[in-house]
Amino acid sequence: MQLSAEIIAIGSELLGPTRVDTNSLWLTEQLNDIGVEVQLKTIVGDDGARLEEAVADAVKRADIIITTGGLGPTEDDITRVSTAKALGRELVYHDEIEAVLRERFQRWGRKMPEINKRQAFIVEGAEILENPRGSAVGMLLELGAKRIAILPGPPRENQPMFTDFVLPRLKELVGDVFVARRVMKIVGLGESAVDEIAAPIYNSVERASTSILFNKTEVELHVSVRRDSRKEADADADELARRLSDAFGIAMFSTNGETMEEVIGRLLRERSETLALAESCTGGLVARRVTEVAGASAYFGEGVVTYSYEAKVRLLGVRQETLDKFGAVSAECAEEMAAGIRERSGADHAISITGIAGPDGGTDEKPVGTVFIAYAGPNGVASRKFFLPGDRYLIRWRTSQAALDVLRRALLKASQDR
Amino acid sequence: MQLSAEIIAIGSELLGPTRVDTNSLWLTEQLNDIGVEVQLKTIVGDDGARLEEAVADAVKRADIIITTGGLGPTEDDITRVSTAKALGRELVYHDEIEAVLRERFQRWGRKMPEINKRQAFIVEGAEILENPRGSAVGMLLELGAKRIAILPGPPRENQPMFTDFVLPRLKELVGDVFVARRVMKIVGLGESAVDEIAAPIYNSVERASTSILFNKTEVELHVSVRRDSRKEADADADELARRLSDAFGIAMFSTNGETMEEVIGRLLRERSETLALAESCTGGLVARRVTEVAGASAYFGEGVVTYSYEAKVRLLGVRQETLDKFGAVSAECAEEMAAGIRERSGADHAISITGIAGPDGGTDEKPVGTVFIAYAGPNGVASRKFFLPGDRYLIRWRTSQAALDVLRRALLKASQDR
Repeated sequence: MQLSAEIIAIGSELLGPTRVDTNSLWLTEQLNDIGVEVQLKTIVGDDGARLEEAVADAVKRADIIITTGGLGPTEDDITRVSTAKALGRELVYHDEIEAVLRERFQRWGRKMPEINKRQAFIVEGAEILENPRGSAVGMLLELGAKRIAILPGPPRENQPMFTDFVLPRLKELVGDVFVARRVMKIVGLGESAVDEIAAPIYNSVERASTSILFNKTEVELHVSVRRDSRKEADADADELARRLSDAFGIAMFSTNGETMEEVIGRLLRERSETLALAESCTGGLVARRVTEVAGASAYFGEGVVTYSYEAKVRLLGVRQETLDKFGAVSAECAEEMAAGIRERSGADHAISITGIAGPDGGTDEKPVGTVFIAYAGPNGVASRKFFLPGDRYLIRWRTSQAALDVLRRALLKASQDR
Repeated sequence: MQLSAEIIAIGSELLGPTRVDTNSLWLTEQLNDIGVEVQLKTIVGDDGARLEEAVADAVKRADIIITTGGLGPTEDDITRVSTAKALGRELVYHDEIEAVLRERFQRWGRKMPEINKRQAFIVEGAEILENPRGSAVGMLLELGAKRIAILPGPPRENQPMFTDFVLPRLKELVGDVFVARRVMKIVGLGESAVDEIAAPIYNSVERASTSILFNKTEVELHVSVRRDSRKEADADADELARRLSDAFGIAMFSTNGETMEEVIGRLLRERSETLALAESCTGGLVARRVTEVAGASAYFGEGVVTYSYEAKVRLLGVRQETLDKFGAVSAECAEEMAAGIRERSGADHAISITGIAGPDGGTDEKPVGTVFIAYAGPNGVASRKFFLPGDRYLIRWRTSQAALDVLRRALLKASQDR
């Protein structure tokens, strides 16, 4: 059965000039995956009357209503009161929610502020959705055939809550549609170039939908295939992913949603090899990304951030003559940095980065965005020059991605050569 | 007079999993600047009935309604028909619009497709807003004291149209209102604790509005004050900011929107002093944040990420006995790390971080989230133990914030002591 959904995002901050509602994107994807279409989105501030009206209207129109936000402990957090009014229900106090909150604050060594008691009120008849990641529990209501999910605002709270508690119940409602999704990631190509290659392939598959997302330094290709059985959906999604993967070759670094740093971690683990890093313009960003992966200590022992000449000499053994002759932003310096950190750390692989992230420091010869990345491994040292456009933030991010991709290609190449 | 606005974004592409409505950000800024608050946003697909309802509802609630999109020439472009219905007015064909369109197509060397005739229909009584950048004209309607602006979707068309034709008319309506805005940031207190302290202060100021935003590790307090003159607005906003700053004391690290890393940068620059970093569990995140600020090389020369015991000993001079006796996650290790990097780098100030970011590696004695942060400065070394809740990502982020805050307080204290 084709059902419709509406999403209501709550919070005055979403009505300011700086923030858009991004929660709804993820929710829309989840809903689309089970064949539910989002037909309207409302963004409402901390304004009880308007929220009440928005919820009441949505209930009239849609089969599934999802609200996000407004479940905090302050007076501004109006979702509990307004949804109850819109649905003509009472709010009921739950001692056990208060007890859980008190216990949690105690564990943090803090006393629960009295206003947090507000978070123990639940719309009458709602199922309580636990929130191990925050203080606001969610709610799920049934109104005849309609379902209303009331979720907290932070994605790291509402996403697991939706996945664990709401999605299974919506699936019951929707019936037997099986959707298999694959998230593939591509580096080094733009959005339109990706679509040109991918479109003929995904368009040839029935009941498939694709969205293409550009995310700072990589293009994500989300494909989903709807079938009448799980087996069929999985098989056809795998086949589609395989064809796309063949088309993109090494530029596709992930066919299962893995991040670049997870791919790096997996490749190093598989080889029982280690990595060391020497960063200048990225200032620790690459190390930060590598260590974002749990268990990174198995393959990452150290990194250095050498901003000054002096640190490059002392910590990496870069020669003063190299710096004097070629400057810190040069292939020569990058190669000495990589070789230096590899030797001193004893790691199998080393990556170094030196460049100009701007906004100042650019010259005609080496404009802002000029970056040298060197790789040192068992077979020696090599460097590559990049020119990466953008502002300081983007240049640094793109540089970190380019550096990890240099490493990825080196790791893959090393295995081929064996 | 305080007027309210609603924005309606039209187009099915805005209801997919990849695109958010960003038009409204710019419009909101323009409206806020003349003292108009946006109270609701609706995003509706190419669905006539829903759009009609959205417009009718908005007209009931708000003083100013702005729609964007849905003015193209295809059947999907439903804005003309649905707004006319919602307002109970006819659509009127304007030959002169068709003539302009025909002429424009001719200039491009093309014949006007017949479907473009649709774009010559105008809601009865509307003022026509010219669009030199595209084929869809806009409309401006007066409904008693209310104003309804119907704008095309592309920003490069709707922004000049808004500025040239809509804004001047709204200004007449609003009169001379001047808005001064201040963004303040607080560390170490939760959202509810901040509100408890701030509410009595901002509530005592007339024609002021406040929003409180929790952003991973800091609370943002946005206040705006509306007055009849620029001078008055600025003076009263400054006074409100001063009172809030007094109430929060050192916990308020920014009264002008500066980020924590910008504050650190400013304090170091003012003192012409330098910083070095030694990170374990944050894996480069603190260095990355410090170097996110343009010009950080003036005060930041180096940082090391020492994940392994061996790197802590070799790069920082941590004693093997310390690691054997107390472990890497200990006050003793943190202090030796900070003292070591300070001595080797020659920096004035040094911060070290060692802890357990999880998900693995926790023990009963040192659970996941246990973090030691040490500061080494001209007066010696001191460390502090933290327990920071969350998952790996949040623990690392909170640790980075705690570390920068330890540094900030040390810098402020050092100046007081002088």
